[in-house]
Amino acid sequence: MSVTHPRGFRAAGVTAGLKTSGKPDVALVINDGPARAAAAVFTTNRVQAAPVVWSRQAVSDGVAVAVVLNSGGANACTGPAGFADSHATAEHTAALLGISALDVVVASTGLIGERLPMDLLRAGITDAATQLTADGGPDAAVAIMTTDSVPKTVAIDRASGDGRPWSVGGMAKGAGMLAPGLATMLCVLTTDADAPAEVLDAALRAATAATFDRVDSDGCMSTNDTVTLLASGASGVVVDAAELTEAVAAACAQLARALVADAEGASHEIAVTVRGAATEAAAVAVARAVTRSNLFKAAVFGNDPNWGRVLASVGTVPVEVAAYDADALDVSINGVQVCRAGGVGADRSLVDLAGAREVLVDVNLHAGAASATVWTNDLTHDYVHENSAYSS
Amino acid sequence: MSVTHPRGFRAAGVTAGLKTSGKPDVALVINDGPARAAAAVFTTNRVQAAPVVWSRQAVSDGVAVAVVLNSGGANACTGPAGFADSHATAEHTAALLGISALDVVVASTGLIGERLPMDLLRAGITDAATQLTADGGPDAAVAIMTTDSVPKTVAIDRASGDGRPWSVGGMAKGAGMLAPGLATMLCVLTTDADAPAEVLDAALRAATAATFDRVDSDGCMSTNDTVTLLASGASGVVVDAAELTEAVAAACAQLARALVADAEGASHEIAVTVRGAATEAAAVAVARAVTRSNLFKAAVFGNDPNWGRVLASVGTVPVEVAAYDADALDVSINGVQVCRAGGVGADRSLVDLAGAREVLVDVNLHAGAASATVWTNDLTHDYVHENSAYSS
Repeated sequence: MSVTHPRGFRAAGVTAGLKTSGKPDVALVINDGPARAAAAVFTTNRVQAAPVVWSRQAVSDGVAVAVVLNSGGANACTGPAGFADSHATAEHTAALLGISALDVVVASTGLIGERLPMDLLRAGITDAATQLTADGGPDAAVAIMTTDSVPKTVAIDRASGDGRPWSVGGMAKGAGMLAPGLATMLCVLTTDADAPAEVLDAALRAATAATFDRVDSDGCMSTNDTVTLLASGASGVVVDAAELTEAVAAACAQLARALVADAEGASHEIAVTVRGAATEAAAVAVARAVTRSNLFKAAVFGNDPNWGRVLASVGTVPVEVAAYDADALDVSINGVQVCRAGGVGADRSLVDLAGAREVLVDVNLHAGAASATVWTNDLTHDYVHENSAYSS
Repeated sequence: MSVTHPRGFRAAGVTAGLKTSGKPDVALVINDGPARAAAAVFTTNRVQAAPVVWSRQAVSDGVAVAVVLNSGGANACTGPAGFADSHATAEHTAALLGISALDVVVASTGLIGERLPMDLLRAGITDAATQLTADGGPDAAVAIMTTDSVPKTVAIDRASGDGRPWSVGGMAKGAGMLAPGLATMLCVLTTDADAPAEVLDAALRAATAATFDRVDSDGCMSTNDTVTLLASGASGVVVDAAELTEAVAAACAQLARALVADAEGASHEIAVTVRGAATEAAAVAVARAVTRSNLFKAAVFGNDPNWGRVLASVGTVPVEVAAYDADALDVSINGVQVCRAGGVGADRSLVDLAGAREVLVDVNLHAGAASATVWTNDLTHDYVHENSAYSS
């Protein structure tokens, strides 16, 4: 499992002391090749953390050998000194591994607006470099957790046309501040397939657009989101863009689902599927409007199948974004059609949300053939508690 | 106070039994003239409640004599039968008052997706029509409350250049689902000034754009928002657009502030002022992004001056909407400059939110001379509780 599931990778997770809890907080992932192709996507937030600025540049040549990640501090809004810290992190890692600093991706997560304790971080990376193993992926996944209650890992196996296996592995963290582009998180994906950086880049962008970009736990976009894909080529299997996209998307979908399931304080996972849209973009826009309704999310927490709040959210989407007739809208919640043609449908008491962890909201616009699903969570007392008590 | 503060108006508030609580739930406001000019603005939600559809048409000729309002049911998402109910409400009111149904504005608030009990509503309106008095404004304000803890009324006095008094009065309800355009609510404004419907319309649009449209308690836009302005001309004072706009804006600002102060479950009122913007629209867009951050709002509930979450929200605004350099951003919270030039400023512990009901967030974009303020509330346990337990 995790990033060491594919051949050609080693990883480690250690405790550097960045977290006051004393839990693991530094992870290192290295690609032993023979290929060193890489791609990455980053937050679209205009306030970008120093490691994002560093890593965007580092991966721009399509090559990365190592990813160093820390929890316990985001190194965001830390100015030129913070950027120097990310640079120094890469230099230190590179020196230990005998590679170029420009082949080191740096990722950080934790409190915004505080400098990282660089002495502790350097010592932690030194420690991690001595512990790199081919089964270190699960340790690395633990070391990047913040408010996550469980580590999130994935392993996907595929075979070439002539029966030779190749795989994709991955780890992710994120339990709040989940909103597109990207769902807020750090994620490292690995594959032992052989593909050039351009193919990795295309596959990663397509995969994240259909998965992480459709997770929206609380509408808040982070400053640090980083998803990196490294390819070792160690399987000897050359894959094309379609094959790689399928497998990477499968890995991203599993991780995205795990992020939603572990979202801070949630008691329900809510999938909003919009069908009958003129375009997929229209379906996404309508679904996203519903997933951002605090009122609907609070109703779900109260086990109330409040379809009126669904319609009120759908109605906020501008007509130029999604065409539909408000008097044609249908809404089903967990299979019960509570709204028919914009009006009252089946008795809402037929929907039992108290016994359901998953809430499936189905909106039919009757305006076309496209559809899309966006995931979110309910809005709970625990969400408020975690995010009022935890500085991040 | 309230809608009967200006001369030429009578009002009443009665209990029709629409609310299970047995509290007042039907209000009637009538303009005794001599003028009968009117204007109204409505929710921009594409899912529009039946009374909104009715009233938009009724006021389109610039004339209205009466406004009939009910709490205890929104009459939204009720299909053609619901529209017939709004029509019948207007007809019944008109017959009692000896006027045309097309001069009756209808407004409803309460649960979406249920028909109104028309027998009870008709009887309530009949009752209200017998109780109309020149000091009935406060009773009317009580009858439109839903989760409001206090009625919201306003009275503004002005004088003409030659010293003759004129005034604006008003009432509003709304304590959740407050988001622009408009803040979710019902509002009736009255004036004894003499102005044609075109002037009323221009004044009302300008006033609401700068006040109710800048209140965003929970980012959720309602299906029923209606703000009506009636002018009786009873003062004999002819006002121009600028004079009327100033007074109506002052009335709206007081009511908007009262809505924020009474927002469901809130423990802090948050004013986000963005200055140094290239345009007012850019300032509003940035301020709105901050007021919609659940993470920042939860932090304020926890008395945490979490400026990192402010910056993360500012960063979500597209560059084509608001130009700024992320490394130039300054943020002050209640006067303490916690973020300077995109990085760490004064010690956040200097900000004491526990003792403050008002939280003033000041963001300087350093990109121009325009500014704007948007109001919101913190995200609290009580918000979650009220909105998970109350079907609306």
